[in-house]
Amino acid sequence: MATQGTTTEKSTLFNGSYGLSIRVPGMSFEEAMDKVKGSFQAAGFGLPPGTTNLNLAGIFDKKFPGKFNLPQMHVIGFCSPPHALKAMMTEPSASLLVPCNVCVATTQDGVVEVSAVDPYALLGILNHKDELRELVEEVRAMIKAGLAGITA
Amino acid sequence: MATQGTTTEKSTLFNGSYGLSIRVPGMSFEEAMDKVKGSFQAAGFGLPPGTTNLNLAGIFDKKFPGKFNLPQMHVIGFCSPPHALKAMMTEPSASLLVPCNVCVATTQDGVVEVSAVDPYALLGILNHKDELRELVEEVRAMIKAGLAGITA
Repeated sequence: MATQGTTTEKSTLFNGSYGLSIRVPGMSFEEAMDKVKGSFQAAGFGLPPGTTNLNLAGIFDKKFPGKFNLPQMHVIGFCSPPHALKAMMTEPSASLLVPCNVCVATTQDGVVEVSAVDPYALLGILNHKDELRELVEEVRAMIKAGLAGITA
Repeated sequence: MATQGTTTEKSTLFNGSYGLSIRVPGMSFEEAMDKVKGSFQAAGFGLPPGTTNLNLAGIFDKKFPGKFNLPQMHVIGFCSPPHALKAMMTEPSASLLVPCNVCVATTQDGVVEVSAVDPYALLGILNHKDELRELVEEVRAMIKAGLAGITA
């Protein structure tokens, strides 16, 4: 069962327990990409140079034409440098879990859905859970604000 | 306790349970970066356009001068498109867990260490564990080969 963002429509594509996901009916893929960037930046995230910016559908279409069943799927890596710095000073291996991935995809019914990795799922992997719990909760609140802002 | 690569020296920096980590004494940071790229490509990974390429120490130094205690720390995102495609066709949310991050860092004693995210840790997050277990094991074997190749 997916943990949901603030919109009322549940994601049908991203129904995993490690994603915070919303469905944005009436919004084009390009508009959703723009809104996601603006909204996550307003929520306190940045897009540092070299961050993840993967056109997955494009990569798959080029490598395996006709095999992938989604027309558009793009992963953007957002980062809050103060939180990342604190996490890595506590636990250097946390560098393996950054940036915060947000995936925008057009489902087969033509509706765009957006999913962000749920920091609670990553807390389950971290070793310094007690020291990093508050930080993870802060980042999670920022992600929820970023998702809510897409349709605001 | 870290799961180790094939070298005999254990990582001191990346001692988390979700990293496959090695220490490469005698190798410069630049040489390690080159070797990691060559070795992971030889193991079957690619560096698709837009993949993660984060100079974390540089980002932190610029934002918070003098606060970060490692001179060099860089995250590279490797991807095996056939495995990524299969994972996402089984579970679209798996897009939130790509690419496979590999972090290269110079420790305070001047030795370079390399850590790759352990796919077993991600298997713990995935919903379709039974369907994706074999795929995760294949990617893990590729990562171990990539790490072993750095010092080969």
